[in-house]
Amino acid sequence: MTIPSFIEKNKDRFLEELLELLRIPSVSADPKFSKEVQAAAAYVKASLLKAGADQAEICPTPGHPIVYAEKIIDPKLPTVLVYGHYDVQPADPYELWDSPPFEPVIKKTSIHPEGAIFARGAADDKGQFYMHIKALETLVATGTLPCNVKFMIEGEEEIGSDHLNQFVLANKDRLKADVILISDTHMIGMQDPSITVGLRGMAYMEVEVTGANRDLHSGTYGGAVANPINVLCQMIASLKDEQEHITLPGFYDKVQELSPSQRQRLNEAPFDLSEYKAKLDIEEVHGEKGYTTIERVGIRPTLDVNGIWGGYTGEGAKTVLPSKAFAKISMRLVPHQDWQEIAQLFEAHLKSIAPASVKIQVKAHHGGAPAVVSDSSLGYRAAEAAMEETFGKRPLPTREGGSIPIVALFQQELGSDPILFGFGLDTDALHSPNEHYGVKNYFMGIETIIAFFRHFSQLSST
Amino acid sequence: MTIPSFIEKNKDRFLEELLELLRIPSVSADPKFSKEVQAAAAYVKASLLKAGADQAEICPTPGHPIVYAEKIIDPKLPTVLVYGHYDVQPADPYELWDSPPFEPVIKKTSIHPEGAIFARGAADDKGQFYMHIKALETLVATGTLPCNVKFMIEGEEEIGSDHLNQFVLANKDRLKADVILISDTHMIGMQDPSITVGLRGMAYMEVEVTGANRDLHSGTYGGAVANPINVLCQMIASLKDEQEHITLPGFYDKVQELSPSQRQRLNEAPFDLSEYKAKLDIEEVHGEKGYTTIERVGIRPTLDVNGIWGGYTGEGAKTVLPSKAFAKISMRLVPHQDWQEIAQLFEAHLKSIAPASVKIQVKAHHGGAPAVVSDSSLGYRAAEAAMEETFGKRPLPTREGGSIPIVALFQQELGSDPILFGFGLDTDALHSPNEHYGVKNYFMGIETIIAFFRHFSQLSST
Repeated sequence: MTIPSFIEKNKDRFLEELLELLRIPSVSADPKFSKEVQAAAAYVKASLLKAGADQAEICPTPGHPIVYAEKIIDPKLPTVLVYGHYDVQPADPYELWDSPPFEPVIKKTSIHPEGAIFARGAADDKGQFYMHIKALETLVATGTLPCNVKFMIEGEEEIGSDHLNQFVLANKDRLKADVILISDTHMIGMQDPSITVGLRGMAYMEVEVTGANRDLHSGTYGGAVANPINVLCQMIASLKDEQEHITLPGFYDKVQELSPSQRQRLNEAPFDLSEYKAKLDIEEVHGEKGYTTIERVGIRPTLDVNGIWGGYTGEGAKTVLPSKAFAKISMRLVPHQDWQEIAQLFEAHLKSIAPASVKIQVKAHHGGAPAVVSDSSLGYRAAEAAMEETFGKRPLPTREGGSIPIVALFQQELGSDPILFGFGLDTDALHSPNEHYGVKNYFMGIETIIAFFRHFSQLSST
Repeated sequence: MTIPSFIEKNKDRFLEELLELLRIPSVSADPKFSKEVQAAAAYVKASLLKAGADQAEICPTPGHPIVYAEKIIDPKLPTVLVYGHYDVQPADPYELWDSPPFEPVIKKTSIHPEGAIFARGAADDKGQFYMHIKALETLVATGTLPCNVKFMIEGEEEIGSDHLNQFVLANKDRLKADVILISDTHMIGMQDPSITVGLRGMAYMEVEVTGANRDLHSGTYGGAVANPINVLCQMIASLKDEQEHITLPGFYDKVQELSPSQRQRLNEAPFDLSEYKAKLDIEEVHGEKGYTTIERVGIRPTLDVNGIWGGYTGEGAKTVLPSKAFAKISMRLVPHQDWQEIAQLFEAHLKSIAPASVKIQVKAHHGGAPAVVSDSSLGYRAAEAAMEETFGKRPLPTREGGSIPIVALFQQELGSDPILFGFGLDTDALHSPNEHYGVKNYFMGIETIIAFFRHFSQLSST
């Protein structure tokens, strides 16, 4: 049977198996979902075996397990390592979902006239890594697998991949590969295929500010005792100046500045500011002075409050002068910022600016290094050729604002360049209510991955 | 039977009846307690009838009802109107209470060696207005009531007394009195009795800042799209300068500045800064430059964030760029600031400083006027004499930071001076977990109120 007819014949099953995986609420951040995280790992293992892997195993870690599998057809042939993650972001706020986050439904949208799968994890990353399993299955079933394949699918990407580092270091030989495929990014559009060559790193911090030892009456004490919310707001506000530059001393010291020509090339990617604003329903974009939107998310570091809370947040009014206020603050980093250095610098600076009237605690949740990927490696050229074949257009190299902390680790420890072979769109609502992934993207991804295997094997043998 | 022997004989019952009232969670701010608010009103009505009121009724309002009662012994004699409120602040955070907030327990503390009643509303205001009911009962039972008494006990004080205004205007004749007694404030200490002659007003606002139309991935959009939390923090921080002066244009225009001698007299009240800081476990107080702690809470307006929320506030980390952020912000006002004017000014200013990259909504929850009470009226002199008789020391006139919005209303509409005849202490944890009220304060209050009736009738007849 040919590849196209095998896919055509199994289309419904390929989709249904993904929906089944999406029904498992494998939220890694929340301990109350730990059983579901285990169940997702077991489902991935079973899928890999079913697809034709020689062996697959669930490798325990001190956190959530890593699923490892391989299909070695000839040690002399090149080897592709696929990385992905079966864990998902928390789905709250649940009330903003149009359908329950763990009951996937397929609905048509203006961007996805063929339909999109709505579910937490649909694009990030279940729908994307599962394409690789279906590509393997197709290659094995049609007798066309041209090289060896390994899979490493982890369960802690959304909480910082805390235990992957250790696993990679302990399994260097086993993970040896000529190229690493990661589908956890997006393209510019269906008409504008692209391959990500730059990712931002991250340092994710939490701050706790304490005023008095108990909640106080804001009448009796207001004006005389520090209000930790006001203080926290003042500290957060002071972290950026009027140009939206980040004021942490030393923050930009290691930031790689791009040359004018590099910046120009970056800005040549298709981008429609009016459409961008219309989709988000905003009057104006908002960011660092002197940079375009593409640059602000691609090559510049950020500081965003991801969550804040303190005092009375219920209905109506309560005149409390709270004892504590909290914020989760993350910084996206660019080459060559070091996340641990930035985390230390953040902590030291916040402690230095806190007034004597409050106590402050700062902790780092997790972090990851920024990464830049070669756009001339064998793997990149194979990916480029595969996309050109299926999309009919040569993909553009782009820089994406998100973080995949392990990309830098793979480069450093495994010595092979990862290819950021993503098929999502930036409108997929990753980390948001109503996350979705185009059905067409899913099947185009499977086809393109299969084409990649062919191109990569051909390029490797020449 | 004499007054002291009647009180002594009924001591346990006087206390138990208050505990019964404290068991009703009459939280006015939260609609889920509306039945309990009704139940508290019914309990108050029954208590008043039992104490000897000629008649008592539950007067409906568009919100929570007002309990009105009276005992008219002779229209020619003077009349005392008692005001209080049977509603309480929300009790959360529940986990910080040492015992459940609506299961009152009596425990000894260093400040209350005779024991204090721990419960939400113990001091604010159930324990305090209930003293007046027990004083009435004692006077009636012992045949010593020297004048007429009216009671107006409302259920919306903690949410701004929204419907009291209308009730007062509609019932001016019925509420006619020579003096109004309000026990909803505190004294300096058991050894330092005091009577409050100044209260701050309040404008309580809520702000909602919206960035994009949905939560976004902080990697894909971070740095390019406004983060409503960062924006909200910047706006809040900008509302105070480095001297902790409030920067709202026009905010101080109507603030009454006290003369140096008035300020000096205010600062003569006993106050130990080290003890104040130690009790709150703070290194430093925090407030407007150029004013003492007593002045900061007594004669200066404030701006405090009472609650803030937005983004991910659960366990762990979520890299969300949220769509919305919220804050509840209240300003305590001093004579002659007008709360409605200040609320408008706040709204206009916040809208003017919001960047074009966000949408902003500002609403006023409620407000109240600041008030200054005469310290030479007949009522004040009777209160002074009563306190001197029971505490053995002439009480000091003080200014308190809290707000009782209706004081200014009473002055204006009923034409009689309210006496802020509070018997609590500032350590009673009003609006906080572990609110309590001294058992001794409760009984000293009853005795002092009875003495007030005698002194007031004597002074009135001379």
